[in-house]
Amino acid sequence: MPELRRDPVVGRWVIIDSEHSKGPLDFPKDNNTPRHHAICPFCPGREHQTPHEADAVRPPKSLPDTPGWQVRTVPNKFPVLTAEGSLAKEGIGIYDQMTGVGAHEVVIESPDHDKTLTELTREEMLSVIGQYQSRFRQLSKDARFKYVVLFKNFGSSAGATVEHAHSQIIALPMVPKTVLEEIKGAEEYHQKQSRCVFCDMIAQEYQDKERIVAENTSFLAFCPYAPRYAFETWIIPKGHSADFALADQSTQAHLAQVLQDVLKRIKKVLGNPSYNYYLHTAPVGYADPSCYHWHIEIIPKLTRSVGFEWGTGLHIVPTFPQDAARYLREV
Amino acid sequence: MPELRRDPVVGRWVIIDSEHSKGPLDFPKDNNTPRHHAICPFCPGREHQTPHEADAVRPPKSLPDTPGWQVRTVPNKFPVLTAEGSLAKEGIGIYDQMTGVGAHEVVIESPDHDKTLTELTREEMLSVIGQYQSRFRQLSKDARFKYVVLFKNFGSSAGATVEHAHSQIIALPMVPKTVLEEIKGAEEYHQKQSRCVFCDMIAQEYQDKERIVAENTSFLAFCPYAPRYAFETWIIPKGHSADFALADQSTQAHLAQVLQDVLKRIKKVLGNPSYNYYLHTAPVGYADPSCYHWHIEIIPKLTRSVGFEWGTGLHIVPTFPQDAARYLREV
Repeated sequence: MPELRRDPVVGRWVIIDSEHSKGPLDFPKDNNTPRHHAICPFCPGREHQTPHEADAVRPPKSLPDTPGWQVRTVPNKFPVLTAEGSLAKEGIGIYDQMTGVGAHEVVIESPDHDKTLTELTREEMLSVIGQYQSRFRQLSKDARFKYVVLFKNFGSSAGATVEHAHSQIIALPMVPKTVLEEIKGAEEYHQKQSRCVFCDMIAQEYQDKERIVAENTSFLAFCPYAPRYAFETWIIPKGHSADFALADQSTQAHLAQVLQDVLKRIKKVLGNPSYNYYLHTAPVGYADPSCYHWHIEIIPKLTRSVGFEWGTGLHIVPTFPQDAARYLREV
Repeated sequence: MPELRRDPVVGRWVIIDSEHSKGPLDFPKDNNTPRHHAICPFCPGREHQTPHEADAVRPPKSLPDTPGWQVRTVPNKFPVLTAEGSLAKEGIGIYDQMTGVGAHEVVIESPDHDKTLTELTREEMLSVIGQYQSRFRQLSKDARFKYVVLFKNFGSSAGATVEHAHSQIIALPMVPKTVLEEIKGAEEYHQKQSRCVFCDMIAQEYQDKERIVAENTSFLAFCPYAPRYAFETWIIPKGHSADFALADQSTQAHLAQVLQDVLKRIKKVLGNPSYNYYLHTAPVGYADPSCYHWHIEIIPKLTRSVGFEWGTGLHIVPTFPQDAARYLREV
């Protein structure tokens, strides 16, 4: 029998379509193996084809915009928001408008065109996480920005237009809707229970066990009880922590380990699918860090959203999270 | 310069990406011309291949599940919710669950496999609208259901798996998130302004004029100020009305006219693209009809949602609504 399940943070209901339940082999396959590309603008030696480097992990004394880097952040050549200008708001009758001021950056995650995150060494993966955090810290200093979001599109079905391993970071002049909803839900829960809803979720996951995918000293990876997508997996710090930008060196190393571990499991179980992940952290200067809990949401791109989901916000999910977790855990 | 725009009902911000602005010819093309299909289960003569007819527009004395119908509604052979059983709720620790009770129906909109909605006669189109309403009225009588949603997937990029013209109706045991958000926004606006936010939006559209696509006696079609998708178009009754199920015969005729008119414009301007539409109406037995205003949202499927949009709820739209409206209005 189909099940309706409600997410405890934002109150979103989802339908688990148990009558047409799908396992890992029931989804169409993507081919996401990178192939050598003679004119890739993200490869070393073509640094002049991107805007000037904003940040990088590179040897001391090596110069910006030259080869030698391990991770490299550049402004997006085709930004959706513009870095220049001040923030102006205007009312147009009942409508509101703001100038599209923001930052849009690309984090190139490896010099090697043929490597995806799953093939990086532990140290290389840690450099990626360190670079993410460095950008969060830097962009949070700009008074125009209220929120910084990191996201990765891997594979063309997930929206990647360049194959060379990269993530994107956008700094926004307002807190986006999805995060606002999480914060509101977490604040309401905190008011009632005097506890963090995400911390309670972690406790519940340990009690139920069946949705756990992996863990290490600092992080739990699990398939959420009320997912929006098949094989959706979250990575969350076990200890309460609102802000990714404050994660210390050893926490970053543990994140590098668990993120790579989960991506390897997804690759193995689902045959190198396209995926997206994004990092939800507290807004810049968030006043009440006891209410929010940062985390990463990973969405393998296995099905297409259709009219019903857009029209209702009600997702139909063909795989129970405990089944997805079992496949990912046992691989 | 990119613009951030806020929807006045739900408060959602969108980015209008004016730097990479797209016109009708800049999107990839679909091929959505129906072709004769020898084994289509929705064609007349194959009524036994679907579950038993729930409703139909057919000549007096013609029998259910036989040819002769103009519009025919059958339970979906692969329903995402089950029609049998009672509604049971359960708490699993901090999580909530409900049995997946609901109705899932298919409205077959023409006996003719080769006709899309744009090719129906005015009378045939009115039969489709009448059948939609008949199902809303019928399903609203079931005490288990709190909401009825109608949606159409046209073209495989929009999620259609059967080419023969049809829409789907799902009756739900709860009000879905997107509608709840609209209702909450409309109620808050009504508390402050003592007016319907949708009525104010209509007044604003008449004042600004530039986003209007078409109109007739009862309906306005326009591209909303803060759309989520390029060429997104709404059809809304000009007079305040919360509930589609209460639309009278002449209103239905006007809806048939304007819906077909807008779909023809979209087909012509965008080259027969895939699209979704869905109807948002008040929940079953909604207590405060002065706050809500039913409408249809039409989304041509021109771009793909990516990680950033899922992760933030912040849509990036490559076409200003006034430009989309001009194309659609002037075609």
